Amino acid sequence: VISKLPQTGTNIFTTMSALAAEHGAINLSQGFPDYSCSPQLIELVHKAMNDGHNQYAPMAGVMALREQVAIKTEKLYGAQYNPDTEITITAGGTQAVFTAISALIHPNDEVIMFEPAYDCYAPAIKLMGGVVKSLELEPPDYRIAWDMVKRLVSNKTKMIILNSPHNPTATILSREDIDELSALVKNQDIFILSDEVYEHLVFDGQEHHSMARYPELQQRSLIVASFGKTFHATGWKMGYCLAPAYLMQEFRKIHQFLVFSVNTPLQYAIAEYLKEENTYLSLPAFFQEKRDHFRNGLEQSRFQLLPCSGSYFQSVTYDAITDEKDTDFAIRLTKEIGVAAIPVSAFYRKGLDRHVLRFCFAKRQETLDKAVDRLIKV
Amino acid sequence: VISKLPQTGTNIFTTMSALAAEHGAINLSQGFPDYSCSPQLIELVHKAMNDGHNQYAPMAGVMALREQVAIKTEKLYGAQYNPDTEITITAGGTQAVFTAISALIHPNDEVIMFEPAYDCYAPAIKLMGGVVKSLELEPPDYRIAWDMVKRLVSNKTKMIILNSPHNPTATILSREDIDELSALVKNQDIFILSDEVYEHLVFDGQEHHSMARYPELQQRSLIVASFGKTFHATGWKMGYCLAPAYLMQEFRKIHQFLVFSVNTPLQYAIAEYLKEENTYLSLPAFFQEKRDHFRNGLEQSRFQLLPCSGSYFQSVTYDAITDEKDTDFAIRLTKEIGVAAIPVSAFYRKGLDRHVLRFCFAKRQETLDKAVDRLIKV
Ligand SMILES: CSCCC(=O)C(=O)O
Ligand SMILES: CSCCC(=O)C(=O)O
Repeated sequence: VISKLPQTGTNIFTTMSALAAEHGAINLSQGFPDYSCSPQLIELVHKAMNDGHNQYAPMAGVMALREQVAIKTEKLYGAQYNPDTEITITAGGTQAVFTAISALIHPNDEVIMFEPAYDCYAPAIKLMGGVVKSLELEPPDYRIAWDMVKRLVSNKTKMIILNSPHNPTATILSREDIDELSALVKNQDIFILSDEVYEHLVFDGQEHHSMARYPELQQRSLIVASFGKTFHATGWKMGYCLAPAYLMQEFRKIHQFLVFSVNTPLQYAIAEYLKEENTYLSLPAFFQEKRDHFRNGLEQSRFQLLPCSGSYFQSVTYDAITDEKDTDFAIRLTKEIGVAAIPVSAFYRKGLDRHVLRFCFAKRQETLDKAVDRLIKV
Repeated sequence: VISKLPQTGTNIFTTMSALAAEHGAINLSQGFPDYSCSPQLIELVHKAMNDGHNQYAPMAGVMALREQVAIKTEKLYGAQYNPDTEITITAGGTQAVFTAISALIHPNDEVIMFEPAYDCYAPAIKLMGGVVKSLELEPPDYRIAWDMVKRLVSNKTKMIILNSPHNPTATILSREDIDELSALVKNQDIFILSDEVYEHLVFDGQEHHSMARYPELQQRSLIVASFGKTFHATGWKMGYCLAPAYLMQEFRKIHQFLVFSVNTPLQYAIAEYLKEENTYLSLPAFFQEKRDHFRNGLEQSRFQLLPCSGSYFQSVTYDAITDEKDTDFAIRLTKEIGVAAIPVSAFYRKGLDRHVLRFCFAKRQETLDKAVDRLIKV
């Protein structure tokens, strides 16, 4: 078989979670909570199933849920999306990303992205015959040098992929980034794929600069969001995409043949839950407490904390400890110290190693405490 | 925007279900049950969620479910699939089909398929730059003329897509078809994508000729199956793919970036259910009774019944009633008679109209009775 993606091996999340399990290590590698999602939400799923909502949802999603998404988006970002034509429910954020890229990228189209990056962007681009034009960002601040981005733009540039709050670096786009981006795409035929799955996880009173807030960006953006991250249920695989109708039309042509529709009872349950509860409003404080707790603990260690403005990830450097490669050190930490992390070099296609490890702090306080106890011994 | 799939409009299932709803018609168009799935299965989902199975499943699926699929496949078809490397759980059959095509079809590869066909095959092929080589089959028996198939084979042929039991024609592959297929692919580098989502819906004591039964076919096949169809819960969007490891490896490379993983609690629930219950063994009798009931009713009408060997679809011709196009007649039936059906011309890319309508009989007896009452008045 001639592989479509010859470079693809087992991904780092699978690898590290498996290694953590094998060695009984505390798993701060793959990003998911170790506490329960809302019991009320579980009851709503049960009710939806018992109410008989078990057959195909409409292709674009259950209307009640699309309406709730529209309400939430208007409330948070002041943007109006038409549930009929501009909102589609997906089987998680990853499916939305893949579908958006599939819908818009033709062979030889160029896509600008930044690294480190979540690992699903580049393979989807390649699969569609597109060309990745990537800018490598560097710790500690991973700032985007927009003049460098400008040099990547050509008449083949079809899309730019952004991710804020950012996985793995925990940075967020600033108002200045938004202005630079706006200047960059102005009068250009460039679409924006904006991965905003951590939209609610922004700290220290900063705000999330969703593309939805800025009309001149919004009208060329596909925005990806995740119920799994928002409701502490990453395994439910529920997300959505927002886009103006002319883009959503193309998105849905792919969605229709890729999955047709998404789990029905979960859509009803989440729609009800969004109607009753604005739990997402308390998420920044909820996660900020975890972040602070974890950071305070690590202050006593020989790891050096990188800034964390958003997401549920905390990165560290470790030059005071060892000059091992981050992949080697991550494996040794898991085996010998009993804490699993993700080596951030895995988020660079070329494996750029700046000695950074990423820990997920979406964990119970006792889990974080136990991890800190072990890490301060290093 | 330059569309990747310029020909794609609203699909026939969405169109007819919406028209049925608008006119309060009995909806025998889109294929889904109008009765409940198993309450026990619903309780198992509830339990899985309460047990905390709400975070990412492994990329290939929850191992307990893969193991149950392996057991079931061995029991039914005598085939051994390794859960580690040869079984992947998907977000429904459609996602499995899309993923299989994405994984194997390169630009200019040719794919042989038959029409009428479910509507997701051809767009996925086109999206990957592949070329559809299609043979149009004709009512009443929709037999495959294998000498014609042979003429479609070239040195660019990469895949042949089969679907048995067949949607929409309700035919099944015979032992002779299997022999012809085996002769055709022998010593050729041709993969088989076998859509077997209706595997349990085979009537009159006939058997389902799964590709899994025939080692020389099995070793080149990706087999797609559906829990939604088997457990009367089409809206759960759960299915799986079986393939030998060398093919599954490529399938998973796409799956990983397309969706990463599939709903976790549902996987645990279905695994438990498969352990406890072999309900799928009673499905042929369950659906055969519905088929017979519906056919008996329609015998009194002016519609002419086509054969039905499998699936939950019954097709009819209507030349004794009108010479309208099937699309026009389907709309009129919905509006004026109050029964929605699918015009089978929609399953031919060129719209070949042989005056055939497809009814779904996965409905309660009273629904079928009410529909028959209306249809015999035509
Ligand atoms: C889908 S597994 C990866 C989860 C995640 O978002 C991460 O760990 O970065
Ligand atoms: C996914 S909607 C179509 C359902 C179905 O299989 C059919 O009606 O043919």
